[in-house]
Amino acid sequence: MDNLGVVFLSEVVGTAMLVLLGCGVVANVALIKNKGFNGGFLMVTIGWGFAVFSGVIVAYNSGAHLNPAVTLGLVANGATEFGSGVPVNPVSVLTYIAAEFIGAIIGAVIVWLAYKQHFDEEPDPGNKLGVFSTGPAIRSYAWNLVTEIIGTFVLVFVVIAFGGGRQGEGGLAALGALPVAILVIAIGASLGGPTGYAINPARDLGPRIAHFLLPIKGKGGSDWSYSWVPVVGPVIGGLLAGWSALFLLPILT
Amino acid sequence: MDNLGVVFLSEVVGTAMLVLLGCGVVANVALIKNKGFNGGFLMVTIGWGFAVFSGVIVAYNSGAHLNPAVTLGLVANGATEFGSGVPVNPVSVLTYIAAEFIGAIIGAVIVWLAYKQHFDEEPDPGNKLGVFSTGPAIRSYAWNLVTEIIGTFVLVFVVIAFGGGRQGEGGLAALGALPVAILVIAIGASLGGPTGYAINPARDLGPRIAHFLLPIKGKGGSDWSYSWVPVVGPVIGGLLAGWSALFLLPILT
Amino acid sequence: MDNLGVVFLSEVVGTAMLVLLGCGVVANVALIKNKGFNGGFLMVTIGWGFAVFSGVIVAYNSGAHLNPAVTLGLVANGATEFGSGVPVNPVSVLTYIAAEFIGAIIGAVIVWLAYKQHFDEEPDPGNKLGVFSTGPAIRSYAWNLVTEIIGTFVLVFVVIAFGGGRQGEGGLAALGALPVAILVIAIGASLGGPTGYAINPARDLGPRIAHFLLPIKGKGGSDWSYSWVPVVGPVIGGLLAGWSALFLLPILT
Amino acid sequence: MDNLGVVFLSEVVGTAMLVLLGCGVVANVALIKNKGFNGGFLMVTIGWGFAVFSGVIVAYNSGAHLNPAVTLGLVANGATEFGSGVPVNPVSVLTYIAAEFIGAIIGAVIVWLAYKQHFDEEPDPGNKLGVFSTGPAIRSYAWNLVTEIIGTFVLVFVVIAFGGGRQGEGGLAALGALPVAILVIAIGASLGGPTGYAINPARDLGPRIAHFLLPIKGKGGSDWSYSWVPVVGPVIGGLLAGWSALFLLPILT
Repeated sequence: MDNLGVVFLSEVVGTAMLVLLGCGVVANVALIKNKGFNGGFLMVTIGWGFAVFSGVIVAYNSGAHLNPAVTLGLVANGATEFGSGVPVNPVSVLTYIAAEFIGAIIGAVIVWLAYKQHFDEEPDPGNKLGVFSTGPAIRSYAWNLVTEIIGTFVLVFVVIAFGGGRQGEGGLAALGALPVAILVIAIGASLGGPTGYAINPARDLGPRIAHFLLPIKGKGGSDWSYSWVPVVGPVIGGLLAGWSALFLLPILT
Repeated sequence: MDNLGVVFLSEVVGTAMLVLLGCGVVANVALIKNKGFNGGFLMVTIGWGFAVFSGVIVAYNSGAHLNPAVTLGLVANGATEFGSGVPVNPVSVLTYIAAEFIGAIIGAVIVWLAYKQHFDEEPDPGNKLGVFSTGPAIRSYAWNLVTEIIGTFVLVFVVIAFGGGRQGEGGLAALGALPVAILVIAIGASLGGPTGYAINPARDLGPRIAHFLLPIKGKGGSDWSYSWVPVVGPVIGGLLAGWSALFLLPILT
Repeated sequence: MDNLGVVFLSEVVGTAMLVLLGCGVVANVALIKNKGFNGGFLMVTIGWGFAVFSGVIVAYNSGAHLNPAVTLGLVANGATEFGSGVPVNPVSVLTYIAAEFIGAIIGAVIVWLAYKQHFDEEPDPGNKLGVFSTGPAIRSYAWNLVTEIIGTFVLVFVVIAFGGGRQGEGGLAALGALPVAILVIAIGASLGGPTGYAINPARDLGPRIAHFLLPIKGKGGSDWSYSWVPVVGPVIGGLLAGWSALFLLPILT
Repeated sequence: MDNLGVVFLSEVVGTAMLVLLGCGVVANVALIKNKGFNGGFLMVTIGWGFAVFSGVIVAYNSGAHLNPAVTLGLVANGATEFGSGVPVNPVSVLTYIAAEFIGAIIGAVIVWLAYKQHFDEEPDPGNKLGVFSTGPAIRSYAWNLVTEIIGTFVLVFVVIAFGGGRQGEGGLAALGALPVAILVIAIGASLGGPTGYAINPARDLGPRIAHFLLPIKGKGGSDWSYSWVPVVGPVIGGLLAGWSALFLLPILT
């Protein structure tokens, strides 16, 4: 398989794993009769953090972006090469992003299968959508966008910091996927209150498409009017982080 | 002691440790008057994750399967050798699986001893069985099976990914048992809602046998009608994961 | 950029990250309508611990003090050189401390932006201040001071222990920022009850200044009468820890 | 300072740190008006786990037993030398144990200082004692002893496993104090329900002596009738673990 094929498959599987375990923890907490029902926000943040951990583990050869905001952030950061030696160009960027969305859709379908009966018995359509996609606690496109930009900025800026600088040599690298998991838990706990921290266009729009397409019993609308916020916000946040990191990280780390 | 003997003892002790600490956290949360009573699902998932951690630590020489789904998944993955240099063949596979079940039964007996008085005072027989074995939140053999297959697939697929590929060299290997613990917490939080995530035939059937045999005060039935689901589901999930990993992981990692 | 400039920028960005994620988790838990509302004290301690983790990652070149009590503790410990090879002298010490306060103010402003609508809708002015700065559970300047001294002593003493002694060689160093995060979670869980564990003058006074200056809707006073406690306590605790560590740590580690 | 002096100081400081942070988290959760009041059993287990982490960090040169059950378990395991090259003999064993008790008493006194006002305002004498020492959920000396023996067996057996065998080479050793913290969290979550998991004679009897001696406002009795259980149980468990590990661990790991 050529390098672009490796990247595609790796991002599909990794993002599917991320969304399966990430949306899965929301299903466990939000859908009626589950053993983790009302398990609390901390459990959601830990579940998402370790979902990212698991996704990163199985997508090593593509560099485990699993997130278009990371891919675009690396472009903005001036990367000339992605994982598996793929050069940065429009085709490779689109390959990453397409794979991330496809993986996210697949992961969301599997969540639906794993929680099929609980979707069937859950009376509130809003809870069903909430398993798939984020929604704002207080709806205001402008401020929701701000929150998503800040959250994604932190994600991409620190992820780039993991890879470079002096601490990369034998230090954080030896920890593999754990630092990213810790970072995602931090962002969820600390910046997830207002919008549920999409911080990843594929993680939000992919499952939303799955929600729209799947024959989920008693589902409501897919809230398309909000759907652009967790796409545009993370893209802006990721680009800003990549640009900032280009200038700041060589000084900071 | 020959290699099969090492494997046998190692898997017995490791699985006993896993079940002692794993079923122990359920006892703490589920049985009346305990200090951790109603401690929440997150505590259960963390308890199980760190139970696996502890079990893996004391079963290094057998490769710490502690789970027939892992053993069979490795066979399906084409392994030619298990831990301690034991060749893969029917005798070694049966040795692993027998040791895992025996260890699980021993672990469950010790849980009963550690929580003896709380078993005695607990009025609900269902809570007593729940310490030993999993049960479905909504009973439906087919869908419960689906959930167990998905959960075990994730477990075995990612466990095999830990061992191979580029990230194995000096990276995850240096973390020892921690990545597996994180993975088990992730699966519990994210896929444990519908069935309580057996994802391990020995972890479920072994303690169920102990529940059946032990003179537990006021116990009810051992729910044998459900007992095949957390055996068959994990076996299918583990085999599928082993086969998939054979083709996918060399590309992904 | 010269070394003092590196230190300045590094401490500003690191402390801003620390305060953004640290005060952010309090906002999530304390302000009305948030998804993490009433998420519990454990979530707060984990959020703060991982906030420190994230701040340390992006401030590698200054040694990631992010806390005047750490800076002063290192001086008391007899350090002759800080991160990036900066010699210890009044100018470098002031550069560290100034950067820490400026970073903390910036971080607090970004928290306000990320949670803007929740600040607007929150009815209780005390909860708004609580996002920015700590306050005592039972007000008593003397005893509150004692608690802050003890908490900061633990922080600075153990942080110095991380760096030196035999365990530094290839052990803890390889874990990067994780040990500090664990330590901060420990201090929060264990010593955070009475005062909310400022244990850092910049983390407390910086956001308090931000609270005073920002046009926060419906805000109350900034509780200046208490404001000296989480400054003086941590300074005393940090100095005592540095002096104690000078004599004890060569023996202990 | 000679080696016994190093051991003594190291164990005093390490055990004081362990008890300060460990009993501290109980104070936070149990005493009225604390910010972590009613924070849940999971927070207690994480607090204790990370308390052990912090104690181990500052007691590197003595090998960080911090627990007479560990010291005696190592003797039973056939150790000929403790940390800092101290030979195993009655004097060194007594030095360890004396230092552990003294450290535990000091740590408990500091907890009282850090939480002074909350002790003063707490109406229930039982909650005050509970900060210092463990007590049974259902009082039965025999079964409480069984639970403490099992918990301590797990602690000492796995701690010895950390140090030896193949996984010690560059694996767990590189993680420093983290594996012990994880193990202590596991034991607390899984075996802490019936007795509150003393699993350490010094951690229980030391603070009980402090409770007896300190002028705590409105305190009740120190429950001396139970006090032997969390001493005798851990000693038995530690010795059994050391003996078992002598025969089993060379095979298992």
